[in-house]
Amino acid sequence: MKSSELLSAANKLALSRLISEVENETSAGKIALDECFSRSGKAHLIGVTGAPGTGKSSLVNRLAQLIRRQGTQTVAIVAIDPSSPFTGGAILGDRVRMRDLSGDPGVFIRSMASRGELGGLARTTAGVVQLLDAAGYDLILIETVGAGQSEVDIARLAHTTIVVESPGMGDDIQAIKAGILEIADILVVNKADRPGIENTERALRANLELGYSHRVNGKTGHGGFTEENVVVDSEGWVPPVIKTIATEESGFPELMKAILEHRSYLQKTGLLAQREHERLMDEFEHLLRHTLVQNWKAHTSTEQVSRVMEAVYSRKRSPASAVEELTRSVK
Amino acid sequence: MKSSELLSAANKLALSRLISEVENETSAGKIALDECFSRSGKAHLIGVTGAPGTGKSSLVNRLAQLIRRQGTQTVAIVAIDPSSPFTGGAILGDRVRMRDLSGDPGVFIRSMASRGELGGLARTTAGVVQLLDAAGYDLILIETVGAGQSEVDIARLAHTTIVVESPGMGDDIQAIKAGILEIADILVVNKADRPGIENTERALRANLELGYSHRVNGKTGHGGFTEENVVVDSEGWVPPVIKTIATEESGFPELMKAILEHRSYLQKTGLLAQREHERLMDEFEHLLRHTLVQNWKAHTSTEQVSRVMEAVYSRKRSPASAVEELTRSVK
Repeated sequence: MKSSELLSAANKLALSRLISEVENETSAGKIALDECFSRSGKAHLIGVTGAPGTGKSSLVNRLAQLIRRQGTQTVAIVAIDPSSPFTGGAILGDRVRMRDLSGDPGVFIRSMASRGELGGLARTTAGVVQLLDAAGYDLILIETVGAGQSEVDIARLAHTTIVVESPGMGDDIQAIKAGILEIADILVVNKADRPGIENTERALRANLELGYSHRVNGKTGHGGFTEENVVVDSEGWVPPVIKTIATEESGFPELMKAILEHRSYLQKTGLLAQREHERLMDEFEHLLRHTLVQNWKAHTSTEQVSRVMEAVYSRKRSPASAVEELTRSVK
Repeated sequence: MKSSELLSAANKLALSRLISEVENETSAGKIALDECFSRSGKAHLIGVTGAPGTGKSSLVNRLAQLIRRQGTQTVAIVAIDPSSPFTGGAILGDRVRMRDLSGDPGVFIRSMASRGELGGLARTTAGVVQLLDAAGYDLILIETVGAGQSEVDIARLAHTTIVVESPGMGDDIQAIKAGILEIADILVVNKADRPGIENTERALRANLELGYSHRVNGKTGHGGFTEENVVVDSEGWVPPVIKTIATEESGFPELMKAILEHRSYLQKTGLLAQREHERLMDEFEHLLRHTLVQNWKAHTSTEQVSRVMEAVYSRKRSPASAVEELTRSVK
């Protein structure tokens, strides 16, 4: 039996094991990804991101519960947890999540640690999401913590990106948000019962207007990343601002409605296909970089590298000239 | 005249222009880096990082002022500002900084935007720092905003890494700190006049003890990243916790003392040479990845890529098999 045939929502244990193979980039994982690729492409991928402390995990939890109560759709959650650069282990884990959702056969939860290697996270996350997609999960929620390059990468992975804010963040954070806001399809102000909610909402709407003017100037959402194939959309999508209180489940029906509206907007305008293409191109580029380095390693001895690096360490030659010498033969 | 001969602290305009060439990765920039490499390796590189809102910019400012007042050492500041993933421009700029320090000929200030490309920031920052080093600046302060992969990269670039915290951050941020703390050589609690200072200090010291036990288990500071050449140091370096108030210049003489102590600790134990080697190996690896992709591009037509990607878009073949086909000829 092919490993990909084990892929089904009914067989969570087999799915978990395959995900580990993909995470560890084993050859079994690579074969599984290859085999299941043609069955993927059906799920709606939803990214959930924002600064630490905004309550993203609770929000994702509540959203999954609502989806399960509202109908027959299945949900997978992929949570990227901040990890130690030394131990590589996830710090937060899936402690809270497991309690509320783990009994439901239509829900699959996976925590992933953000590992040290540049680009590694985006590459393995794409693989894990593809497995869950091929296994038949209808909605896949991808949750990331932090505010940096990884958010932009995860946003490119998703069809719909939800940026979560909460009242009471400082000016410095506001400045960073300006960048994060541009990737938002839906904005959520969580902890809407906290003081300062009016200020947060006002600041968001002001920033949104800036972001919106960027978008309609030919850069529709994710289309800003690549120059080609931009679907010109005269209407544009103005990200709605939705207030939620995750602890009380307030605002969640509105959030669910916005997600469905964004989905049908993407379908109507052809942007869904465009985002899929960009996603696949990204995945291709990540894999390409990785493969080129692996191929180079296979053709270069560690003795060669050590010899050249000794000259670099003593500043007799520059890192650039070292690279030049060690890539010449591979050309 | 060689472009590298223009490199001197006395010629800030020429230096600024060369930095732009390096930032834009032009061939003039590459030549300059190559030419000046043998003159680099003298400066003390100090990374300053921490979560948004901790007052890093003011701290870096004050530190530069103090260094200038205390003696004859020159200072360069490289500030990595959060940037928009769309426009690529820096958001914060060097607004505050310029006012206090720009009149001093012994101070050079440069803001850099954190750009979209993965690994691009670390690569160009390393280049800019190398230019400043070759130009003769004694201390180079590298300031980064955020909490993620880029911090770890910048930490690997520096000899001494200062992690800045401030009172009143939430639990979620604490969790992230656990990772960031492990890269700290010196811990600063800024805004020490704010309420909650005792809690922050206590939490830091508790986390530090964890981090310290990691370190003495054979993973001394940056040495944890690579397996080889780890200098076993029976004493270890316990990062001091220093309270500062940047607006009042309180705690800065203590901070300066800690920086000098860390420097002499690195020299005494041989860790300075080790960190230099790791730094250069990192630079080599970044350049290698970049060069391999450039070489691949030079040997692959866009028509080839388009044809294969069409098959991927229609899910007839996987991204991995596309990469396999398009790298076969380069092998």
